[in-house]
Amino acid sequence: MTAAFDLILRHCRVATASDVFEADIGIRDGRIASIGLALPPGHREIDVAGRVVTPGGVDAHCHLDQPMAPPVQMADNFETGTRSAACGGTTTVMPFAAQQRGSGLRAAVQDYHARSEGQAYVDYAFHLIVNDPTEAVLETELPALIREGYTSFKVYMTYEDQKLDDGQILDVLDISRRHGAMTMLHAENSDCIEWLTRRLEARGRTAPRYHAHARPMLVEREATHRAIALAELVDVPILIVHVSGREAVEQIRWARGQGLSIYAETCPQYLFLTAESLGMDECYEGAKCVCSPPPRDKANQEVIWNGLNDGLFNVFSSDHAPFRYDGMEGKHPEGEQVAFRHIPNGIPGIETRMPLLYSEGVLGGRISLEKFVELTATGPAKAYGLHPKKGSISIGADADLVIWDERELTLSNAMLHHAVDYTPYEGMKLKAWPGMTLSRGEVVWDGKAFTAPKGRGRFLRCGRPSLRPMRHLAEAA
Amino acid sequence: MTAAFDLILRHCRVATASDVFEADIGIRDGRIASIGLALPPGHREIDVAGRVVTPGGVDAHCHLDQPMAPPVQMADNFETGTRSAACGGTTTVMPFAAQQRGSGLRAAVQDYHARSEGQAYVDYAFHLIVNDPTEAVLETELPALIREGYTSFKVYMTYEDQKLDDGQILDVLDISRRHGAMTMLHAENSDCIEWLTRRLEARGRTAPRYHAHARPMLVEREATHRAIALAELVDVPILIVHVSGREAVEQIRWARGQGLSIYAETCPQYLFLTAESLGMDECYEGAKCVCSPPPRDKANQEVIWNGLNDGLFNVFSSDHAPFRYDGMEGKHPEGEQVAFRHIPNGIPGIETRMPLLYSEGVLGGRISLEKFVELTATGPAKAYGLHPKKGSISIGADADLVIWDERELTLSNAMLHHAVDYTPYEGMKLKAWPGMTLSRGEVVWDGKAFTAPKGRGRFLRCGRPSLRPMRHLAEAA
Amino acid sequence: MTAAFDLILRHCRVATASDVFEADIGIRDGRIASIGLALPPGHREIDVAGRVVTPGGVDAHCHLDQPMAPPVQMADNFETGTRSAACGGTTTVMPFAAQQRGSGLRAAVQDYHARSEGQAYVDYAFHLIVNDPTEAVLETELPALIREGYTSFKVYMTYEDQKLDDGQILDVLDISRRHGAMTMLHAENSDCIEWLTRRLEARGRTAPRYHAHARPMLVEREATHRAIALAELVDVPILIVHVSGREAVEQIRWARGQGLSIYAETCPQYLFLTAESLGMDECYEGAKCVCSPPPRDKANQEVIWNGLNDGLFNVFSSDHAPFRYDGMEGKHPEGEQVAFRHIPNGIPGIETRMPLLYSEGVLGGRISLEKFVELTATGPAKAYGLHPKKGSISIGADADLVIWDERELTLSNAMLHHAVDYTPYEGMKLKAWPGMTLSRGEVVWDGKAFTAPKGRGRFLRCGRPSLRPMRHLAEAA
Amino acid sequence: MTAAFDLILRHCRVATASDVFEADIGIRDGRIASIGLALPPGHREIDVAGRVVTPGGVDAHCHLDQPMAPPVQMADNFETGTRSAACGGTTTVMPFAAQQRGSGLRAAVQDYHARSEGQAYVDYAFHLIVNDPTEAVLETELPALIREGYTSFKVYMTYEDQKLDDGQILDVLDISRRHGAMTMLHAENSDCIEWLTRRLEARGRTAPRYHAHARPMLVEREATHRAIALAELVDVPILIVHVSGREAVEQIRWARGQGLSIYAETCPQYLFLTAESLGMDECYEGAKCVCSPPPRDKANQEVIWNGLNDGLFNVFSSDHAPFRYDGMEGKHPEGEQVAFRHIPNGIPGIETRMPLLYSEGVLGGRISLEKFVELTATGPAKAYGLHPKKGSISIGADADLVIWDERELTLSNAMLHHAVDYTPYEGMKLKAWPGMTLSRGEVVWDGKAFTAPKGRGRFLRCGRPSLRPMRHLAEAA
Repeated sequence: MTAAFDLILRHCRVATASDVFEADIGIRDGRIASIGLALPPGHREIDVAGRVVTPGGVDAHCHLDQPMAPPVQMADNFETGTRSAACGGTTTVMPFAAQQRGSGLRAAVQDYHARSEGQAYVDYAFHLIVNDPTEAVLETELPALIREGYTSFKVYMTYEDQKLDDGQILDVLDISRRHGAMTMLHAENSDCIEWLTRRLEARGRTAPRYHAHARPMLVEREATHRAIALAELVDVPILIVHVSGREAVEQIRWARGQGLSIYAETCPQYLFLTAESLGMDECYEGAKCVCSPPPRDKANQEVIWNGLNDGLFNVFSSDHAPFRYDGMEGKHPEGEQVAFRHIPNGIPGIETRMPLLYSEGVLGGRISLEKFVELTATGPAKAYGLHPKKGSISIGADADLVIWDERELTLSNAMLHHAVDYTPYEGMKLKAWPGMTLSRGEVVWDGKAFTAPKGRGRFLRCGRPSLRPMRHLAEAA
Repeated sequence: MTAAFDLILRHCRVATASDVFEADIGIRDGRIASIGLALPPGHREIDVAGRVVTPGGVDAHCHLDQPMAPPVQMADNFETGTRSAACGGTTTVMPFAAQQRGSGLRAAVQDYHARSEGQAYVDYAFHLIVNDPTEAVLETELPALIREGYTSFKVYMTYEDQKLDDGQILDVLDISRRHGAMTMLHAENSDCIEWLTRRLEARGRTAPRYHAHARPMLVEREATHRAIALAELVDVPILIVHVSGREAVEQIRWARGQGLSIYAETCPQYLFLTAESLGMDECYEGAKCVCSPPPRDKANQEVIWNGLNDGLFNVFSSDHAPFRYDGMEGKHPEGEQVAFRHIPNGIPGIETRMPLLYSEGVLGGRISLEKFVELTATGPAKAYGLHPKKGSISIGADADLVIWDERELTLSNAMLHHAVDYTPYEGMKLKAWPGMTLSRGEVVWDGKAFTAPKGRGRFLRCGRPSLRPMRHLAEAA
Repeated sequence: MTAAFDLILRHCRVATASDVFEADIGIRDGRIASIGLALPPGHREIDVAGRVVTPGGVDAHCHLDQPMAPPVQMADNFETGTRSAACGGTTTVMPFAAQQRGSGLRAAVQDYHARSEGQAYVDYAFHLIVNDPTEAVLETELPALIREGYTSFKVYMTYEDQKLDDGQILDVLDISRRHGAMTMLHAENSDCIEWLTRRLEARGRTAPRYHAHARPMLVEREATHRAIALAELVDVPILIVHVSGREAVEQIRWARGQGLSIYAETCPQYLFLTAESLGMDECYEGAKCVCSPPPRDKANQEVIWNGLNDGLFNVFSSDHAPFRYDGMEGKHPEGEQVAFRHIPNGIPGIETRMPLLYSEGVLGGRISLEKFVELTATGPAKAYGLHPKKGSISIGADADLVIWDERELTLSNAMLHHAVDYTPYEGMKLKAWPGMTLSRGEVVWDGKAFTAPKGRGRFLRCGRPSLRPMRHLAEAA
Repeated sequence: MTAAFDLILRHCRVATASDVFEADIGIRDGRIASIGLALPPGHREIDVAGRVVTPGGVDAHCHLDQPMAPPVQMADNFETGTRSAACGGTTTVMPFAAQQRGSGLRAAVQDYHARSEGQAYVDYAFHLIVNDPTEAVLETELPALIREGYTSFKVYMTYEDQKLDDGQILDVLDISRRHGAMTMLHAENSDCIEWLTRRLEARGRTAPRYHAHARPMLVEREATHRAIALAELVDVPILIVHVSGREAVEQIRWARGQGLSIYAETCPQYLFLTAESLGMDECYEGAKCVCSPPPRDKANQEVIWNGLNDGLFNVFSSDHAPFRYDGMEGKHPEGEQVAFRHIPNGIPGIETRMPLLYSEGVLGGRISLEKFVELTATGPAKAYGLHPKKGSISIGADADLVIWDERELTLSNAMLHHAVDYTPYEGMKLKAWPGMTLSRGEVVWDGKAFTAPKGRGRFLRCGRPSLRPMRHLAEAA
């Protein structure tokens, strides 16, 4: 008698975004074939012994091997990045194919495929970054790419070399509306940041901590309000990425109350770091926590927790942006420190995202297990058209699964599998870590060693966002 | 070879509160034993042929056989009420054991068991109604009843013979906090209603339509704000029942933004009826739509739809309150009409609740199928401690299931199985109706006939609400 | 040649609620007859030498010789109270003729005239307190009294022996609407306070500081929202007295944004005291700062300052409630302290109200001189129908004037002229004090001595409130 | 015996921003010397016979003889503009010296003096328009000009040839903060307008009515929020001009509640016109009502009325922008209509501003007489440093006065004294008109004829804004 399944996980405590229950999970051809009690035997069996099993994480905001202006470069490529992801329980990553100004989006996508092909350990899809929305990009490339499975794109309201003006954003939103894609917005007011930065520099305030002074909350609040207004004008859903605290949350909450489809993402740095993490004047270590928007304070952390619980956020991402700390030092002959303006924005976190939220959120009693699944897997998969293939423990879904070990540990960068030389959470006490990660039914991380062959990860074409029914949109203007 | 399952539903389009997927469902001993592809054979098999299968509904707010002051009486008892529920896709009902003033809660519970024992066709749990929170009730009866599985109770802020004052509500909330129960509040300002009613009566405005004039939105808004303040003071979650429109929604939204655990229910009458349904001055038919709060207007319906989509509401109930229309007439010798003050408050809806929302919400493109499941089944089951036994398609859950027939039909009271002589939705065009309802694996409604034996319904003990982790509550005051 | 004026103030820096300018003020028959440059000579002349001259203050919320339940009694009667007022720059007081339950309003007014007749040093009007709104009171007494010049009345939402229920408040508001009067509301939720008080007492927390614990801000916020809802229902302006901080302010601000005529008063205690003024557990001195609502914290003080500047408040009163500290002690044989529940609510402040706001507000650079005049004189006179006879430096107005000495001084109770044995502001550094107060052209306080004959103060009949045009009110219900 | 006064107005009903009273007004050397009863005789006497006398209006937002890009030109220069102003009760105008890009501010001021010198009938001050904030402008010209009495400047957030980006606005605000000036902002999002305009044009929607479609309320709301954020960042008061309705009002109200000094102006067009005034598709007459922001609807008019009453607005201006209707036609050979994009933005209103508000506001029972004075005269004079010389009936103030004739009349352009060939209010029934206007004690309009010599109007240097005490500003960043 042949085995009914290639693999069975026995005695799971299965957690979906809506339910938690005891069952075996039967896997066939890399997919979940059955969930049930006393399933018939599998070719291979693993006894989970009552541990929690969640869908593998979908990290819908991370940066891997993205071309940067020299000398800055990203430490993680698809190989190290997806390895790190898998060891942290994430089985789908969505990095960005970023258009270069003066070049097309198609070229960016081709380049990014070249960078990822044969490199990844787990599956991946691409978001696009629209940096130069020419008519060709808008009318030809984007519609074609959307049809081909690149259904989400990010636009920046800040960063001199990336930001779009409001008119360009409207153009992108209009494409998104007409072709059923999802626009992600980085909402910070560029001019305000530049203006503050110059003033700080004029006073010699260039230590890492002044990064936070140059990007106060109102700078994010303003851009958030503006992003909402632009989406309202075009009458299209948007998703605001890496929301950091109260003032931005209030704008989104207001918009939702008006019936607008404004979605929102937040990240671990807004739960576990504060502006104090950027250090004092003399301290350069704070450069390790430079990200944008910057971390805020304890009161804002509470607002973010509340938003996670309350349904304001539907996506919890890492915004993994891997820059080596020694690289930052390396740029300074004679040990001179880089002014905060030149510190690459972003921190690593692709591996720590899920354990941090599981430890502090679920085991810390702040969110339910179902909410954890929704935020780390189901929500992002729905937002970007990967559900139910990804982010779901359901029949037919890819057998991307995490088995959680609940045990005390102290986080250190030595444990991690990225190519960055630090973690901003060094020394933090955690209560859980993935004991095993499966990708399409294959064990890629067994809690001790990384076991997957390079290049097994597959590219994923995304469908339409499925957050809520796309209502019939009235003709604008 | 013995069959692996008592019953298999083949080729289901399974919908949970988080996922939709194709699978067979295998049932054993009244519970869901397996969900999967190509499950081994069952003792009995039903080919669902790709139709949608959702969890059986949990109607967490309905009134059955509740003792009333004569001559008013409820038309539905547990027999007719649960029959009607089942034919509309609802497999769990939660009516109210209402304390009589001067009597205890225990007595109410005993009486209600006597009324339900051997009568019900589907399973049922009891909410309590606390009308007289004496020290004995608070300190002795309630804690004991909570331990025994009566973990939710409603209090009224209006109705002369039921309302509690703010101090009494605080006492009840405090018990709820200390013993982990859920308090439901009917939020309308009693004094305002009485004051307006007298003025209307003084002007001869007694037709049914003036019921809505006597209960304007601000009357509900005020009580909602007050309920929130009382819950905030005690630091305990509450659930506000039958929210009718914008002003109340705004209060709840504000509270949620403050981090308060304020949950909310709404009902079909706030989506499908308006104050105009109460008719004009000469018209007595409007009495069929008299409920409290009254239906509002189209703009408020949109606010309610938005709240359903947005996560503001976690429970969608019928507030089934079965009073016969001829009974209302019957009280008037010589055909004189009853003044609106004397029309029993409430409308029937236990059977129409789910088909209305499925037709207009899911098939009308207003909410997703997952959201439908959450609102009609999973959400109420979690709110009142019945999850995952009820309200869930997951392994080990009771096999309470609905198979949906998507077809056009015109609603008429003749189709319904309650003992009320009208439906407020008479003549409405629907796009779906339950083609089959299963309760614990037994077909109770096959789309044409009601097939279950009386008394098969079982009483359910409720556990703790599981809406979000119960945070460590600081000592009040 | 006869003198053109009885009295001339030369070289004034005149401040009205809208303008500040240099001029002489000519007074004839107790009224302002001319304001101008180089006025012709007066019978008597005072050279003000460029000092600021404002209208005499109108203290629209103070308690004098009000009958209390023994053994509590008020320290100030009309004699000491109006003397203290005058020395602090206040020339019109508006204490309360309080109805006793079971008795009528007319009787209260007659009694209060008996208490004031021949006693007062400056002019006075009466607010009424409606404690028992019987039909006779509502339909007969109140309309008659309004016609006779008692056009404002306070109702309490707290205090067991004074509070009205919502229905009674609606009745009073309706009278106010129909007859053009102004209702003042003390907005705190009575049941919440009682509930918290009992819990505190059960834990032995009876020191004065727990007075603030028993009346947290939400208790005021809730009642403020309710008061607004009641006024909205009746469609009539109201004035909420002694607003203490942010949460109540936000409710009022919301109401104003909706177009509702909600007026508001605040008091010095919400600018200059905090809950810490109530002391620590062992400290009984804190009893000197027990008032309701209690003082809050620094952040709330800022909200109140902002509301003063921004136009949210139109009345700044003392809420002078004169109880002797040794009286509080006297009630305790063997030195036992009174539990906070029994400490009479209220603090003295009739004399310090204006100097405190002038020092800290005007000279502290927080509010303009015009705003000072509006808040202390013109605003209250308009709110209660005494303008422009009172609260105004304009032609024909009563020559009630204050000449301000700007000089440093340290406040001590020894300086004050009330009959209370303490001031809560003992030791505070001030920058100004009235150098001279005139009432109807007579100097009653010359900066050193009180010079007026007892009984010179006259009773004032009030007209309609003149805050904004009374819009045509639609028929309610 | 010489007359004490050059002129006396007898029996005035004097209205200031705080008080209304009966008095004579004595004028000497063009200033108010005395206000009083039975003043001694004047050289000339006018018996006002109890009519209302208000301060002459200060129109703080009007455009006269401003250089425009050909072929557009302004119909009114200082001669016709100030004549029209005077006949409508306005005695001080504040038009704009607009910087040309590539040129300096000093040059603009000199040019504007050349245009106004010897032309004006009443007094005038200059606002500046900063169109090109170069370092020379910011660091040299602006500080010098502020010292010389040009203490307010407008910046545009829209109009291609005038708009500043956010960084430039921050620079201007910073100058305003450091030198104590007032920045006025035209708040509309330029990109949104351009984007919508192009779409409308692409569909052939070029009739005047589409002007309103291209500038929906959210476009104003967004820019208002952004303006507030920029002011908050710099920590400086600003004044938002021509606020048109609810969404912008809500932003300002929110800011005020946060303690921010955000001031606001509105105009007659937002009280008396609606988007329907722009006509239907075939109608070109609607071009007469094209202004920016466009008029909204009745509900928004109510919000504006409420803001006037409530203190949200402190300035009520005309935004007089005089373009001839036949000029608009003249540009089209063969009668072709100009697309809305090319219609000059702005409508005439310098003469109708005060009569409209007096008729509909004061006599229509919507605002008090004091509020009328504050909005039309005292408020703008304070906002721009002209108080108390202007906008005030007080001793020493310029004798700029209006005597109001309350009588029924029908407005027609034939009555008006501007050089524009239409009024948008043609045919409107009014209840009052200035019966006499005095400027510095001279009658310039006697209700029938304009009587002043050209060139008598004087240039006014402005001081610091005096809206509220300038609080000590913390160092930004």
